[in-house]
Amino acid sequence: MSSPSSAAPPPPPAEQRRPGPVRFGIMGCASIARKLARAMLLAPGAAVAAVGSRSEAKARAFAEKTGLLLRHAPRLHGSYEALLADPGVDAVYLPLPTSLHVRWAAAAAAAGKHVLLEKPTALCAADLDAILAACDAAGVQFMDATMWMHHPRTAKMRELVADKATTGDVRVPFSHMKGPQDNENGYQARKINSLFSFRANEEFLQNDIRVKPDLDALGALGDAGWYSIRAILWAVDYELPKTVIALRNPVRNQAGVLLACGATMYWGDGKIATFNCSFLTNLTMDMTIVGTNGTLHVTDFVIPYEEKSAAFNMASKSKFAELHIGWDPLPSKHVVSTDLPQEALMVQEFSRLVQNIRDAGGKPEGKWPAITRKTQVVMDAVKTSIDNEFGPVDISS
Amino acid sequence: MSSPSSAAPPPPPAEQRRPGPVRFGIMGCASIARKLARAMLLAPGAAVAAVGSRSEAKARAFAEKTGLLLRHAPRLHGSYEALLADPGVDAVYLPLPTSLHVRWAAAAAAAGKHVLLEKPTALCAADLDAILAACDAAGVQFMDATMWMHHPRTAKMRELVADKATTGDVRVPFSHMKGPQDNENGYQARKINSLFSFRANEEFLQNDIRVKPDLDALGALGDAGWYSIRAILWAVDYELPKTVIALRNPVRNQAGVLLACGATMYWGDGKIATFNCSFLTNLTMDMTIVGTNGTLHVTDFVIPYEEKSAAFNMASKSKFAELHIGWDPLPSKHVVSTDLPQEALMVQEFSRLVQNIRDAGGKPEGKWPAITRKTQVVMDAVKTSIDNEFGPVDISS
Repeated sequence: MSSPSSAAPPPPPAEQRRPGPVRFGIMGCASIARKLARAMLLAPGAAVAAVGSRSEAKARAFAEKTGLLLRHAPRLHGSYEALLADPGVDAVYLPLPTSLHVRWAAAAAAAGKHVLLEKPTALCAADLDAILAACDAAGVQFMDATMWMHHPRTAKMRELVADKATTGDVRVPFSHMKGPQDNENGYQARKINSLFSFRANEEFLQNDIRVKPDLDALGALGDAGWYSIRAILWAVDYELPKTVIALRNPVRNQAGVLLACGATMYWGDGKIATFNCSFLTNLTMDMTIVGTNGTLHVTDFVIPYEEKSAAFNMASKSKFAELHIGWDPLPSKHVVSTDLPQEALMVQEFSRLVQNIRDAGGKPEGKWPAITRKTQVVMDAVKTSIDNEFGPVDISS
Repeated sequence: MSSPSSAAPPPPPAEQRRPGPVRFGIMGCASIARKLARAMLLAPGAAVAAVGSRSEAKARAFAEKTGLLLRHAPRLHGSYEALLADPGVDAVYLPLPTSLHVRWAAAAAAAGKHVLLEKPTALCAADLDAILAACDAAGVQFMDATMWMHHPRTAKMRELVADKATTGDVRVPFSHMKGPQDNENGYQARKINSLFSFRANEEFLQNDIRVKPDLDALGALGDAGWYSIRAILWAVDYELPKTVIALRNPVRNQAGVLLACGATMYWGDGKIATFNCSFLTNLTMDMTIVGTNGTLHVTDFVIPYEEKSAAFNMASKSKFAELHIGWDPLPSKHVVSTDLPQEALMVQEFSRLVQNIRDAGGKPEGKWPAITRKTQVVMDAVKTSIDNEFGPVDISS
């Protein structure tokens, strides 16, 4: 028997063979990927093992600029194929233009990589289904990169919106009410509004991938609209609306890509939501929920004004003061602090799910692809309504 | 010639015959009239000369409860006719149920009384036109009692919304844009949302005049909806929309009165507005304006949270911070103080206009009836769209 020092050690048991952080491959060096690179440097449980771009030089420049090269020394790949062939990559973060998602996200899953996919996840639900089927077949985790879902403020808002005793909704069995809302479970009076816009400059409006029909053909709907649709679904606990009707007068560029649009959604029990998304008006990120008992206002729901703390306003059982000369009680402001920015919390949560699969034999968490799919289905319905002269589009659940 | 002390003095010149405050007659003792009685006690230039109700006992009880009896010692009339026949009344404040407006507001004008009319001013624009024609014929001032119009906060918001250099809109002559918004004056990207709801209790939903088809047949549309429509018109400097489309699934009571509804409005140059009004959800009074350069949020636009100061938030040229991890600059909060509550400022302004006519030979101010009429025209269009299965209703300007 040779001495331990001179012979190769026996392989460690399987559960120790790939210990430690999830090894990410960043697939494409879009501007948004810089933010995610920083998040991967911050997030416990994550490491950047590789960067892949259409050339190694691009990958290197990105790795240098983001500090990854110095901190995580990732392998640099000059093609997406090479990144997917890298056995040292557990998961890919994929910020490519939407038109490339179905090809490369499915390829990543087929290569056994877990998939963290930028939004909009696909050009249509059928494309998304191909991606999700590939992830299912490979047993890998899927999550879309909707960062605000992971901010602790979002959890706090959920808690209050769900609290029927104070701020939440109650279903109202109004005996004296009639109309299409008649529902054996009672009427749900909840109203939701979301606005997401930013004012793109001329450079963006001429050259950004989000105004190019061959790259991000969904334009403002796929970009800003994604967040508003997600916010609305979040606000109703992911119950799909029954009917979607697009607002009229959407704005398109000369190539036909949407620069501004919106829609109203109707649920069978009376809930109504409206959103507007636009590249043409001042940066605005509103979600407003008005229920029977309470009102929630948040004006920076996608990206909080500041990184370390985020606020929202909640009113509960608001009444007029005597003679209607004021309100009593007043709404209250809630502030939620966080040590890690929301994108790092997203990477941390995704990594936790991947580690559970990779290291502990767990199964992929189905909640995330289900939420993604509902968002995409509603987006499809908005697009169909726009294409059908703003007629109602029914969603079969 | 008799001595001055023993003979009746000669009548004073006409301009001195009725000096001093405008002498109001309060015509009807609705709950809202208590707030206005207080406003008339507070407002410079106003005095309550008479109270008229369906019985003198009711008029007396109201005058006692509001402190008017002690402070202004008004004459008490047991009928509206008697109030209108009172030569010591210059102007009436008329808070009767809407179905009675056309009769009594027109009668007041015919009796030479200036008219401060509660909203909704009429059941339809044709009825309002009859009232306005009577005011015109009599040369009396007309104003609707939309109090928030007179808060100094409203003036401050107007100033900022109109300031093209910082927060206001610019019309965008996008050469790369196409769609129904093509307009020789350029595209207007402005979006406006308004929500006004309060959660009525069972007593209200069974017995309030606002749920009775023979009293206030417009229900939530005439009550809360009035304010949202006014807010939207205010936000576009009273330009009438081209097309109005009601939201689906309005809620009615068994008698057919609207308890919740809404609509979207479209202008020819691209502006879009949406409102929801409801008796079924928590007290909420939102107006949000998003323009090319700025975003305005106010969440208590109809009745400020507190009487002595009112706030709103305004963002100007908001951008993302580097890496999109926050905003720069942040929105700013504006606080506007007022010594007099908005309803007293309204009474003061109305009194000033009446004094100008009564004491200085001036003409009625046409701005106020014009704004009222536009509000009523849009309300009619919403109602027509609801009645026509939510089809588009064009407004001819």
